[in-house]
Amino acid sequence: MVKKIKAAVLGATGMVGQKFVHILEKNPWFELKSVAASERSVGKKYSEAVRGNLVGEFSEETLDLEVKPINPKALDEAEIVFSALPADIALKTEEEFAKAGFVVFSNASSHRMDPDVPILNPEVNPEHAVLIEEQRRRRKWDGAIITNPNCTTAVLTLSLKPLMESFGLKRVIVSTMQAVSGAGYPGVPSLDIIDNVIPFIKQEEEKVQNETLKIMGSQEKPAEFKVSASCHRVAVLDGHVEAVFVELEEKVEPEKVMETMSNFKGEPQKLKLPTAPDSPIIVRFEENRPQPRLDRMVGKGMAVVVGRVRKDEALDGIKYVVLGHNLIRGAAGCSVLNAELLKMKGYV
Amino acid sequence: MVKKIKAAVLGATGMVGQKFVHILEKNPWFELKSVAASERSVGKKYSEAVRGNLVGEFSEETLDLEVKPINPKALDEAEIVFSALPADIALKTEEEFAKAGFVVFSNASSHRMDPDVPILNPEVNPEHAVLIEEQRRRRKWDGAIITNPNCTTAVLTLSLKPLMESFGLKRVIVSTMQAVSGAGYPGVPSLDIIDNVIPFIKQEEEKVQNETLKIMGSQEKPAEFKVSASCHRVAVLDGHVEAVFVELEEKVEPEKVMETMSNFKGEPQKLKLPTAPDSPIIVRFEENRPQPRLDRMVGKGMAVVVGRVRKDEALDGIKYVVLGHNLIRGAAGCSVLNAELLKMKGYV
Amino acid sequence: MVKKIKAAVLGATGMVGQKFVHILEKNPWFELKSVAASERSVGKKYSEAVRGNLVGEFSEETLDLEVKPINPKALDEAEIVFSALPADIALKTEEEFAKAGFVVFSNASSHRMDPDVPILNPEVNPEHAVLIEEQRRRRKWDGAIITNPNCTTAVLTLSLKPLMESFGLKRVIVSTMQAVSGAGYPGVPSLDIIDNVIPFIKQEEEKVQNETLKIMGSQEKPAEFKVSASCHRVAVLDGHVEAVFVELEEKVEPEKVMETMSNFKGEPQKLKLPTAPDSPIIVRFEENRPQPRLDRMVGKGMAVVVGRVRKDEALDGIKYVVLGHNLIRGAAGCSVLNAELLKMKGYV
Amino acid sequence: MVKKIKAAVLGATGMVGQKFVHILEKNPWFELKSVAASERSVGKKYSEAVRGNLVGEFSEETLDLEVKPINPKALDEAEIVFSALPADIALKTEEEFAKAGFVVFSNASSHRMDPDVPILNPEVNPEHAVLIEEQRRRRKWDGAIITNPNCTTAVLTLSLKPLMESFGLKRVIVSTMQAVSGAGYPGVPSLDIIDNVIPFIKQEEEKVQNETLKIMGSQEKPAEFKVSASCHRVAVLDGHVEAVFVELEEKVEPEKVMETMSNFKGEPQKLKLPTAPDSPIIVRFEENRPQPRLDRMVGKGMAVVVGRVRKDEALDGIKYVVLGHNLIRGAAGCSVLNAELLKMKGYV
Repeated sequence: MVKKIKAAVLGATGMVGQKFVHILEKNPWFELKSVAASERSVGKKYSEAVRGNLVGEFSEETLDLEVKPINPKALDEAEIVFSALPADIALKTEEEFAKAGFVVFSNASSHRMDPDVPILNPEVNPEHAVLIEEQRRRRKWDGAIITNPNCTTAVLTLSLKPLMESFGLKRVIVSTMQAVSGAGYPGVPSLDIIDNVIPFIKQEEEKVQNETLKIMGSQEKPAEFKVSASCHRVAVLDGHVEAVFVELEEKVEPEKVMETMSNFKGEPQKLKLPTAPDSPIIVRFEENRPQPRLDRMVGKGMAVVVGRVRKDEALDGIKYVVLGHNLIRGAAGCSVLNAELLKMKGYV
Repeated sequence: MVKKIKAAVLGATGMVGQKFVHILEKNPWFELKSVAASERSVGKKYSEAVRGNLVGEFSEETLDLEVKPINPKALDEAEIVFSALPADIALKTEEEFAKAGFVVFSNASSHRMDPDVPILNPEVNPEHAVLIEEQRRRRKWDGAIITNPNCTTAVLTLSLKPLMESFGLKRVIVSTMQAVSGAGYPGVPSLDIIDNVIPFIKQEEEKVQNETLKIMGSQEKPAEFKVSASCHRVAVLDGHVEAVFVELEEKVEPEKVMETMSNFKGEPQKLKLPTAPDSPIIVRFEENRPQPRLDRMVGKGMAVVVGRVRKDEALDGIKYVVLGHNLIRGAAGCSVLNAELLKMKGYV
Repeated sequence: MVKKIKAAVLGATGMVGQKFVHILEKNPWFELKSVAASERSVGKKYSEAVRGNLVGEFSEETLDLEVKPINPKALDEAEIVFSALPADIALKTEEEFAKAGFVVFSNASSHRMDPDVPILNPEVNPEHAVLIEEQRRRRKWDGAIITNPNCTTAVLTLSLKPLMESFGLKRVIVSTMQAVSGAGYPGVPSLDIIDNVIPFIKQEEEKVQNETLKIMGSQEKPAEFKVSASCHRVAVLDGHVEAVFVELEEKVEPEKVMETMSNFKGEPQKLKLPTAPDSPIIVRFEENRPQPRLDRMVGKGMAVVVGRVRKDEALDGIKYVVLGHNLIRGAAGCSVLNAELLKMKGYV
Repeated sequence: MVKKIKAAVLGATGMVGQKFVHILEKNPWFELKSVAASERSVGKKYSEAVRGNLVGEFSEETLDLEVKPINPKALDEAEIVFSALPADIALKTEEEFAKAGFVVFSNASSHRMDPDVPILNPEVNPEHAVLIEEQRRRRKWDGAIITNPNCTTAVLTLSLKPLMESFGLKRVIVSTMQAVSGAGYPGVPSLDIIDNVIPFIKQEEEKVQNETLKIMGSQEKPAEFKVSASCHRVAVLDGHVEAVFVELEEKVEPEKVMETMSNFKGEPQKLKLPTAPDSPIIVRFEENRPQPRLDRMVGKGMAVVVGRVRKDEALDGIKYVVLGHNLIRGAAGCSVLNAELLKMKGYV
């Protein structure tokens, strides 16, 4: 690749925005040219504008970037944009960028359920990328909006993909234990989560249920298996843990499931995309894994870790625990991998 | 009640043992006469022998009790005993006490699955108390062993009881977020649980599955619905949170479920037993309850709190979150309530 | 006392405001008539307006109170007001209430360092109450503003009082480990404090240093010993821990210090004020106390707990650890006790 | 350096032992040949013997090492040993190794206060290495015992060194907030530390006070300034935070202190030892640093981070906050750096 594609990050000062910046800094195909944020930050150096100092070390060059306003003109140096905008702002803004010709890789939920916008989890449904063509036709723009799934959904669907392919899915029940970073910064007050669990995350169950079926269906229609989610916040910094119970079309032993998951490779692996982990699903055999603190950075945060694969007595299927980094596989990393995939497919 | 029944606590220095002592101190029907513990503690004052100082304030009188050895002779002042012994020691020791004529109310798992030993959750299966008669016949002893359920199971089965009665149960899936006090003291190392979740508790899933069916069946045979559990430890001091997904025999709206649960009263309520909470199931309507820190002491830790009752999309049933205090409703409090129930039934 | 004095709480929906409400609900001398809060809450029921649901259970009557606006007219039913207003708003507002004739018991820092406003910690400097007379003269109002100390200072000065009286103080160094509730709600983000310490609390060290000298001096001038503070936030819900190093005028053994602290009684104890703890300083002899979770509610949160009294090798004095509940002794409870004291002194 | 020196780790399965193994795996001068541990582990693979799985990823080669018993014969392949033994076992065992000719770099406290055993913090007192010569003469052995300081002391003395050199020390008061990993594994129970502070660590204050004076004195006698410590455990995984108050011989502005600390380089920096951080003291200017989670890995855990340097009002000196990684700078890393220093000095 001779020339890097120029990229900007919208909403670059929040948790997910910072992850985008962090991941793009080292990406071999994209070059971070601009960071954009709300008026409060415009004109400041990125180093002064970042909130919470949570994502760690950036290069001097990045820290010196001047924060730009969030509009297509101000960012015309860039060819593609990564959006970490809040949903309410993303709704209109991302459309303006697409109209202005930008390909927008978005972590916002605003457009995910639009029929002509793909929710791409690149190992799971790379073929949905073609929806962009319909999107361009219908919306009459040269740019595009491509979304990554909600964090919980990204982890769940990656773990389900080899099961669907090999054994067929009938029902999926998922109960989550989600990290506080999923709520952004400042996000969850410490007064709410020390010595506590919050058994509710606004709109999360709806997202998990609807997005899972859209992602795992065809471009035309959602998958037909059933999904039910119960979502809970726990005192963990990063990494969502999900207890998954699955009824399969076919009866199958846990060992076979582990083997199938371990061997799974998606298109990003086949194409050797730079942000793709070698194996997207790591299966652990110890009785007490995956654990967020020990396993969240596996595959640089792009792999999910599965453990405790065993028979399920209620569904006569299997149950397991899956963990993924909510800000990387579940947000910024997923969108960067989507951009790499679309580059290879010629959409970028 | 003219005269209090004299009671001893076996294993009185651990977490559950301390809870027994704490609850018995204020019980109007029982009088704590003796505390017994392992050799390490025998002869010491209770105040010197308690580990971890976690359960709070005891009376001067209790703190001055001399710790006795765990054998029937040493405790012959007592008429009944409450056992917080570890399972391996409980196996033989509780039988010795029963042979010596004591009625043993045990939190240990050792005898729970014996066919002639009831696992009693007093609002759920008070009729199982009659198993004691068979137990006495078969084992040729005058005493008895009565167990309370595993902590998770106690909370789960109490919440399921009105559903089974009113709508019938077909399948139950439960995913837990359990407090560290469930592992005793010293129990879970802080190095394992700060910024982490441990997705495994030894033998817990088996206990939940087997005990639930035994408790919710008849005296003769287990219930026939299906149960599957996934158990996880989180950074909470007390109070187990359980996400429950249920397929019912009958289709029913969440509102009806909430009403049924709220109105539920068991035999302990009807008999006005001193340790029984007014309502064993408290239903909350807020979107973010129950929470362990806010709700675990409801009904002095003897009630369970249910929230987020809603439709389940995978089982075409309902899902909800239930919380209970693992050391009170899930252990010591449950056994004390069992003792009160058996007193009223004339077994004690 | 025949008739209760009618009271209102300003800023009743925040952490300290809720504590005021909670404490006043059960106070035998005062009657909570009104709760007032910012425009966002005005007109709502108190139950709907409280933030975070953190302080626990209120009576039905309280929960049904309609939130009033923060101005003297709207609260004319009340005779005294307790202020949990933020410092910037308190500055003017409390003056308006004093002008309108209300005696204002304030937790805000805005007026604490005014020469004619007492910072009262009732066991420490009850004689400073006379400053009100000068305040009324100078400011030409019938009401008054009386402040309680900053939370850390309230705990520190109470522990220092018997030392100053008996042995004289030369230098005091204090290093704090402060609870997150001290920052209000939402306050400290969980992303900042899980697996972390924040070694900074805005303006806290200045407050501790300046207020300590004002409180422990005469009405006319600050005390002349030296004070230095270093303040840190830790992952604790309630209860500030303070490591204190003291150089005394007189050399004295730790045992003597413990005895002096244990025996200390202030004017609130002598007057048997309803909110006064029996002993304002509880001395523990165990090597590992005080601990916030175990000791913060001693004396209903109004006592401080001192432990580890030992020789100090650097100052040739003593060192100890003191703990107090930051929202009760360190805020709302202290102001209620101040009101009781001023009632007895005839200022209310 | 042509040939690596062969090394063994004693007590290789605990927290500090694992850190030794981890650091030695990548050390360019030493080659990890053997891991030794208690009988429980002997004969097992290292992968099976490690406790708690906390220190992260080891190489396959390391994980396959067979655990050896802790005696000189079993480890005769090695030339030097690093000891993470518990103090009671270290007392005799380390002497046996020294007698057998090994140079022992020990993290145990057993020999630290022996007059002929140096406590080496390599940037602080490298000249104390000559004590080995006296040790060998007196003890008639060819090996040697060299200790690193207690974790808290290592961090404190490194921060004090440039102050002593440039301005002279008169009094030092330190109040600590220490990580749970300092207590090893399983160590601090989660039931003790969630929502809590433990204001006591056995023997820690004595160690800090005595070791600091020995390290900062000459080979012949301890330093003459005064030190007082108060030590506390907080809910942090790794990284000790210390609030330090210092009276200096000379009055000096905070800016000058910061400059002096920033510019400080010790012998390890001058010799460019492989484990030495570029700058041993990093000074931060933000008002809320250092923080354990953000700063503990600075300089690969070998630097300490100082912040909040400001005037001290009680001692008319300065106060600051210093942070260091208790298992790296405060334990294993310090001993490895000691070994590199002694290699350069020709003792190894």
